[in-house]
Amino acid sequence: MTDLLGRLAAAVGPAHVLVDPDLRAPYETDWTRRFTGAARCVVRPADTAQVAAVLRACAAAGAPVTVQGGNTGLVGGGVPAGGEVLLSLGRLTELEPVDRLAAQVTAGAGVTLERLQRHARAAGLDVGVDLAARSAATVGGLVATNAGGVRVVRYGSMREQLTGVEAVLSDGTVLRRLAGLAKDNTGYDLTQLLAGSEGTLAVITRVRLRLVPLLPARAVALVAVDGVAGALDVLAAARSGLPGLSAAELMLADGLELVRAHGRLPAPFGAAHPAYVLVESAGRTDQTDVLLEVLAGCPAVRDATVAADATGVARLWAYRETHTEAISAAGVPVKLDVSVPVRALPGLVAALPPAVAAAAPAARLVVFGHLGEGNLHVNVLDARGAADAVTDAVLRLVADRDGSISSEHGVGRAKTAWLGLSRDAAQVALMRRIRAAVDPAGLLNPGVLFEEKD
Amino acid sequence: MTDLLGRLAAAVGPAHVLVDPDLRAPYETDWTRRFTGAARCVVRPADTAQVAAVLRACAAAGAPVTVQGGNTGLVGGGVPAGGEVLLSLGRLTELEPVDRLAAQVTAGAGVTLERLQRHARAAGLDVGVDLAARSAATVGGLVATNAGGVRVVRYGSMREQLTGVEAVLSDGTVLRRLAGLAKDNTGYDLTQLLAGSEGTLAVITRVRLRLVPLLPARAVALVAVDGVAGALDVLAAARSGLPGLSAAELMLADGLELVRAHGRLPAPFGAAHPAYVLVESAGRTDQTDVLLEVLAGCPAVRDATVAADATGVARLWAYRETHTEAISAAGVPVKLDVSVPVRALPGLVAALPPAVAAAAPAARLVVFGHLGEGNLHVNVLDARGAADAVTDAVLRLVADRDGSISSEHGVGRAKTAWLGLSRDAAQVALMRRIRAAVDPAGLLNPGVLFEEKD
Repeated sequence: MTDLLGRLAAAVGPAHVLVDPDLRAPYETDWTRRFTGAARCVVRPADTAQVAAVLRACAAAGAPVTVQGGNTGLVGGGVPAGGEVLLSLGRLTELEPVDRLAAQVTAGAGVTLERLQRHARAAGLDVGVDLAARSAATVGGLVATNAGGVRVVRYGSMREQLTGVEAVLSDGTVLRRLAGLAKDNTGYDLTQLLAGSEGTLAVITRVRLRLVPLLPARAVALVAVDGVAGALDVLAAARSGLPGLSAAELMLADGLELVRAHGRLPAPFGAAHPAYVLVESAGRTDQTDVLLEVLAGCPAVRDATVAADATGVARLWAYRETHTEAISAAGVPVKLDVSVPVRALPGLVAALPPAVAAAAPAARLVVFGHLGEGNLHVNVLDARGAADAVTDAVLRLVADRDGSISSEHGVGRAKTAWLGLSRDAAQVALMRRIRAAVDPAGLLNPGVLFEEKD
Repeated sequence: MTDLLGRLAAAVGPAHVLVDPDLRAPYETDWTRRFTGAARCVVRPADTAQVAAVLRACAAAGAPVTVQGGNTGLVGGGVPAGGEVLLSLGRLTELEPVDRLAAQVTAGAGVTLERLQRHARAAGLDVGVDLAARSAATVGGLVATNAGGVRVVRYGSMREQLTGVEAVLSDGTVLRRLAGLAKDNTGYDLTQLLAGSEGTLAVITRVRLRLVPLLPARAVALVAVDGVAGALDVLAAARSGLPGLSAAELMLADGLELVRAHGRLPAPFGAAHPAYVLVESAGRTDQTDVLLEVLAGCPAVRDATVAADATGVARLWAYRETHTEAISAAGVPVKLDVSVPVRALPGLVAALPPAVAAAAPAARLVVFGHLGEGNLHVNVLDARGAADAVTDAVLRLVADRDGSISSEHGVGRAKTAWLGLSRDAAQVALMRRIRAAVDPAGLLNPGVLFEEKD
């Protein structure tokens, strides 16, 4: 123990090995306060070489390591179970100049999404991923968890932005693939293997990301529909008629009411409707006319309000983006993040209330999500004592529909018990074999992704 | 041996186990006639269950397997070294109806790209990948080799089209992920791991692919420029001004002359120019005006000819697409397929002639490629006896520029000796560990991707 602390202090400097409980505390609990665990210490390396030195020291001591970025995860993947060395990558903040010809940039794992966005926009480009935690979420964590967000319908998840990575294996070996080649068929795509591996294979220290055109014109419509089937009609119309489609978000009546009450937002329409779609189109030129035309041609639209100026766009987005905050203000929810093939979405939404009520009669269900990917964020309030039963009920509905028990949040520590619902035994066994091949001692994020074997 | 043949015959029916040398022959040599090897037998399963039975039989006998799709590869990856069971997937031709709502389709490994394209277009959609070998190349092989082609600048390589896969491990275990979920963060992306793994991890039996909008309007310009730097200026102008950019292909003066002579094509311009770019824009509405506008605003353009009708488009594409055929007619070339960061492209093109001349003084160099990815197809004719020296010289130039020694063709058997130029020892070691974890006996495509250890 002392020997390990000494080696860690030698690797990163004594000021960056935190053992005092008060100093450790901010790292030991996630922001939703649902996950907490004591770290042996918190180590804050400044660069890749220091990360490698930290991992060599931990490997020599057989000390397990929990890897943490901006600590904005939702499944406890960046919080210790108890006793791990917590490796915080927040100081890896190097940000290279934008490569305009390649439309790419290289960023340290600790760079926040918001800083990366500002950096890209200053060069006339943009980041293909955007999400509400942008001010704290770091690119290393975004890649390690393959974050999604509100632009997936246009640009894909974090994985699709990734053209290269630098990472350190648990034995301190550095892997570096940062040339950002658009095509490179020389064997297994280790870059993509690390995306979404939740820190169980290697510690990501730098990433090379593609950037997308900065689109100055943006029009948003909030569309009222009769239900999820109608929402899918709006999606289909938007997909075929809006080349600039950049978001298609689903909200339901209950969620919108909660958001309105919490944020004191005005009613968007004269009457309430069962469901709403927020449709955004972004381009180089004004998108209002094409958006109006698509809505006019879609029989599922019951009512709609459109905005194209910055204030109006922000006002409409607030109905969607305030959901998480409004739910948190109402209590500590069971948070599930699932996806099904798009055609199965209406059936899933219909099946949720009775299933949740059976598991937790007093529970309150708030559902919203990313329509284009069949991705629902299922939040269950007032499910005290029945969290596992609710989780189990919802995730089984999803599995019955060939869906994913974690669409964008990852498995972390929270969902390991349900991994088998999305991945059959053959796949889990294969993943474990790959894990053992890459991190034979199992030191990186033990207990994340897979249940620990007894 | 007899026991294995008996089990294979039981698995697929005796008519589909070919042992007669005449029947085996078409499978034992690649179409360029550069790679050949005798198979123990050729086995032609009809479905996934039969593939699994074949692999179980081979595993029980310790028999190595070579996996073959349409046999259109360029690096010998689908041809036996000698003595393998050749597993041909040409009978896995099941093609499911297009899922219009998800814009996806599931296809058997043996479906040709051309058939898939026809199928998608009949549903008002299209395949994001296109390449000259479309009539014979099969989707299983395209995924296993992560094929590229002429649409990568818009839609990415085969990997980017892939939303799910069904594959069989060397022990006969079937992995199935065909729901086509746009987002699924439940552990390692096994689908992406198989893409580009060249049959060394599993045998792909079915794939789930995203489809792209069918774009009826297409305009093509053949643009003359002073050199590769000018070509990159055209690329940059096209990237920023043409939202519909769907191809950006580079040709050089020598190649165009060879193509013209071979195909008896007219001179595109009154005078010859050092380099040419074929730029295509595709959209829902006519692309001619926007294409002309972009070219008019680009000072690097020396001359240009534009076509928007089908005949004219085909005429201009012929200059590019006839390259491979014209080169083959001129001899058996050393074929290299490399990429570098786009900014390094002019330097690489300038460095090639002296490097090739030093390795093979009588050689003739023909270079063309996919500009958007910094991808050059380097063909060297009349390099008899100096193939390895030429290969070595060119690939070292590429490695010096942080490039890939195989941009889209893969490593196969042809490039294993040079893998270390693109992948350092740590990466090769990690890939070997993953290979050993997934196929412990090393029965799938031995000698492909990695040099066999002594």
